[in-house]
Amino acid sequence: LVRADEETTVDQLLEGHDVRVSSGTDREQAARLLQRHDLALLPVVNESQRLVGVLRFDDAMDILEEEASEDAYWKAGVGDVLHHQDAVRSEKLTQGPIGYTLKVRMAFLLVTLAGGMMVGGVIDHFEGALEALVALAIFIPVIMDMGGNVGTQSTTIFARGLALGHIDLKQFFRVHMVRELKVAVCMGLVLATLGGIIAWAWQGAPNDIPMLGVVVGISLMFAITTACLLGFLLPWLLLKLGVDHAPGADPFITTIKDFSGLAVYFMTAAWLLPVTL
Amino acid sequence: LVRADEETTVDQLLEGHDVRVSSGTDREQAARLLQRHDLALLPVVNESQRLVGVLRFDDAMDILEEEASEDAYWKAGVGDVLHHQDAVRSEKLTQGPIGYTLKVRMAFLLVTLAGGMMVGGVIDHFEGALEALVALAIFIPVIMDMGGNVGTQSTTIFARGLALGHIDLKQFFRVHMVRELKVAVCMGLVLATLGGIIAWAWQGAPNDIPMLGVVVGISLMFAITTACLLGFLLPWLLLKLGVDHAPGADPFITTIKDFSGLAVYFMTAAWLLPVTL
Repeated sequence: LVRADEETTVDQLLEGHDVRVSSGTDREQAARLLQRHDLALLPVVNESQRLVGVLRFDDAMDILEEEASEDAYWKAGVGDVLHHQDAVRSEKLTQGPIGYTLKVRMAFLLVTLAGGMMVGGVIDHFEGALEALVALAIFIPVIMDMGGNVGTQSTTIFARGLALGHIDLKQFFRVHMVRELKVAVCMGLVLATLGGIIAWAWQGAPNDIPMLGVVVGISLMFAITTACLLGFLLPWLLLKLGVDHAPGADPFITTIKDFSGLAVYFMTAAWLLPVTL
Repeated sequence: LVRADEETTVDQLLEGHDVRVSSGTDREQAARLLQRHDLALLPVVNESQRLVGVLRFDDAMDILEEEASEDAYWKAGVGDVLHHQDAVRSEKLTQGPIGYTLKVRMAFLLVTLAGGMMVGGVIDHFEGALEALVALAIFIPVIMDMGGNVGTQSTTIFARGLALGHIDLKQFFRVHMVRELKVAVCMGLVLATLGGIIAWAWQGAPNDIPMLGVVVGISLMFAITTACLLGFLLPWLLLKLGVDHAPGADPFITTIKDFSGLAVYFMTAAWLLPVTL
């Protein structure tokens, strides 16, 4: 190929399929194209369809590997804008100077500290309700955990679906968000009913506050639906804003869903239970 | 190669390096070997070093891609023992029948529901302390979130380090756990001091309970150290037990660290603050 005449367009040289990418293509997309067609070399052409180089399978392999790790690292808050190469990062994180590990991990944890204190602010705000009914504190963990895990599921399904071409951004609202909403409502109904029955049987009925089950159920329903939709919506929004790493959405989702989840919990309690704010 | 005499051992045919794997090798390890050496084909030999086949680069690429997704899916609780092929799974999760998505997601969420209720049991147990000092509830989220995020960082660093060969299981305790303990103590000291000062300034000093800052600080220190060590220890333990997916450790870590974190929090409160159990 390299020896062919400079003026020949790549079309005429290829036999069978005409798989190629333009030089401006995103490296992950190019690597996936090579992978999908089981090619050893993927031709790269310029605007006038002239061959400017090839992407080799071994480089494509390293690109896909790095992208997968990149996602995992950002999700865990150990992303590093300066060191893209995955192997180097892993080596520094596990064997390099402790100062590097601390620097990389700490930023995310300071955000966590601030977020956790903000969520505490919601509880502080509803201290009156809590004073009147201390049993309300018992269901704080289940509402936080449920929102968190539902949200992680949604972001993971979105990120993988997008990478593998199963999520079409043009049909994002009409198809994918509608589907996620249906999933959210079904899961919410089952888990909220179950959680509500447990709350009623464990703390509601014995303490003569049967409505506690309804309060926990409504709050779980809200927390699950919000977390599901945010898990799709926030990574999509970050993509639209040009932020590369969708998993970076996680800390935001955590704070938003804890904040709103607990606010709804205490407001429902103030509405249905004999407590005053 | 295939045409060579049946009795020839693979040693004699190779020139330069002698990269090969035995037929019993784990598929991920074999794919990584091919990747590390930038090979298009990796010879596979039997016990008597005779060639039994080759691993092609395109298959190796699919294997590595699948393993990376596999990890992400299990971490988010949408792992599926029956459908290993990543592309198929992603397609079913985003476009298939909603019933499939519900079935796969629900199992993990039922565990979350049970775990959240168990953690609520800790709060129930210390209801007396909470009644005496409702402000204690305010710091429940920060202790839960901090443990959660620290734990996720540790499991991610462990999983990537292991996959890329930067964690040596033979030196697990002597080298890697010792390093993680140092990291945990450093991060704990900074974050616990900061969190303690915030708690003191926000709720401690104004309400004339200055020791609240110390209680929050001690609890954060404990939560961070525990989560760090569990994040390395539990995936290692699962590996030793022959469970393939280290990220499957996450739900266990969540429940253990919330349970112990809040227990330590309330016990420290009972010890240092004017409350009775």
